[in-house]
Amino acid sequence: MTGLARFSINQMTVKQLSMPELVESCLELRIPGVGLWREPVQSYGLDATAKLVRDAGLAVTTLCRGGFFTAIDPQERARALDDNRAAVDEAATLGTDTLVLVSGGLPAGSKDLHGARERIADALGELGPYAAERGVRLAIEPLHPMYAADRCVVSTLAQALDLAERFPADQVGVTVDTYHIWWDDTAPAQIARAGAGGRIHTFQLADWTTPLPEGVLNGRGQIGDGSIDMREWRGYVEAAGYSGPIEVELFNDGLWGRDGREVLAETAARFVEHAG
Amino acid sequence: MTGLARFSINQMTVKQLSMPELVESCLELRIPGVGLWREPVQSYGLDATAKLVRDAGLAVTTLCRGGFFTAIDPQERARALDDNRAAVDEAATLGTDTLVLVSGGLPAGSKDLHGARERIADALGELGPYAAERGVRLAIEPLHPMYAADRCVVSTLAQALDLAERFPADQVGVTVDTYHIWWDDTAPAQIARAGAGGRIHTFQLADWTTPLPEGVLNGRGQIGDGSIDMREWRGYVEAAGYSGPIEVELFNDGLWGRDGREVLAETAARFVEHAG
Repeated sequence: MTGLARFSINQMTVKQLSMPELVESCLELRIPGVGLWREPVQSYGLDATAKLVRDAGLAVTTLCRGGFFTAIDPQERARALDDNRAAVDEAATLGTDTLVLVSGGLPAGSKDLHGARERIADALGELGPYAAERGVRLAIEPLHPMYAADRCVVSTLAQALDLAERFPADQVGVTVDTYHIWWDDTAPAQIARAGAGGRIHTFQLADWTTPLPEGVLNGRGQIGDGSIDMREWRGYVEAAGYSGPIEVELFNDGLWGRDGREVLAETAARFVEHAG
Repeated sequence: MTGLARFSINQMTVKQLSMPELVESCLELRIPGVGLWREPVQSYGLDATAKLVRDAGLAVTTLCRGGFFTAIDPQERARALDDNRAAVDEAATLGTDTLVLVSGGLPAGSKDLHGARERIADALGELGPYAAERGVRLAIEPLHPMYAADRCVVSTLAQALDLAERFPADQVGVTVDTYHIWWDDTAPAQIARAGAGGRIHTFQLADWTTPLPEGVLNGRGQIGDGSIDMREWRGYVEAAGYSGPIEVELFNDGLWGRDGREVLAETAARFVEHAG
């Protein structure tokens, strides 16, 4: 299939595929890149995964994910930092330069979004230099505001950039994901801001479909099925100077219930049709 | 109960109560105001409702709701404007000066948020003078971004004010509802902007609780049960010069399944405890 030169499949989209099945299917479909997740990498083995993708000539475009920096308890914070240093090490071993961060929600009982965001900044200050020394950039992902309480208090690109810009761009940048920002009329200007600072560390696509499922986690739409004009957003990101991989990352119970190779082929075709 | 001088119960919170039960319960609990909805008003009868609340000495703080201005089809647009003129007339008959507007989502198949927002502006231009002549102000309600596709393309206070400020403040202002804006670190500045322009036409409270239910409509949390610091938001609104009624508007299947008078008493008590 042509038009896939910049396509990368995020592993979560086809999580029903084993690591070797994923790699083999990418080769068959001439998909050049994959975004990996820590849990399946650890299940298959870190070194074994690194060898598998390297031997196949696949680019690892991101590792998902670090973060969860909002705890107040000192021991919990120390554990989170340790775990994030391990994630950086894993990213370096896998040969990717980008670790995606989901920052974390409000601690139980807290109503203090500002304080939670400041604790994220503290963690980035500790983790950024460690990551840069290993050739890994941290990519703060603003999640849709519907996740602000329980998953990620960073809800907009502007908030993510306000955090990232406290640090050098080779340490901390942002993840631009259409699913989380498509509703935001200020996002195009923030993409320009991110691009000007060299802080667009990854660009991900998912479509917005309704009704949202209970818990709102696993309803990300297949490209072309929803309300988001993918070419419009690709245009903003490219106008901002980004020319890197474009990952499709879908959490979708319907897709997970189907044959993984078929979903992968469909996703690649939808990418070409709607975002290529 | 003391501390209820500015409290108003939005009818939807206790929709299991009939109109006479609602009015009677408000009198018993010394609740001075109600926000009404068009459908139950029409069921009970417009003039009968107006007489009921007037005789009881209850203030009608808002009528919910007009809007749904985003259709492209000319006939559908004409029908929406007719319906909104009827809503204005109903508001005037009920003695409230505020009609809450939910602007509408994307038309089927459309991905054009900007175009939809412009069609809202067109409708406001037609409806604003009609409303002002009848002593009714239109209050654009930004809904949480999770409703951008299917319910309301106006997702932030900034977007709502960008629309409202094209018109005089006695025609068009905004609804400030904690549920929809609590995640937004720019909202406090936008509340100040709204207050400076005399455009805070109503202030509503609901708490943010997770997990969200399927469809994300009926999971608004009872005051005090969730992540929102109600006194913080009341502080922003009062610092902006707002001294009007404070409505509690909850859509919550759990509350709807209980005795309505008990829910009303609980809601009033929560208001005093967390927002009074």
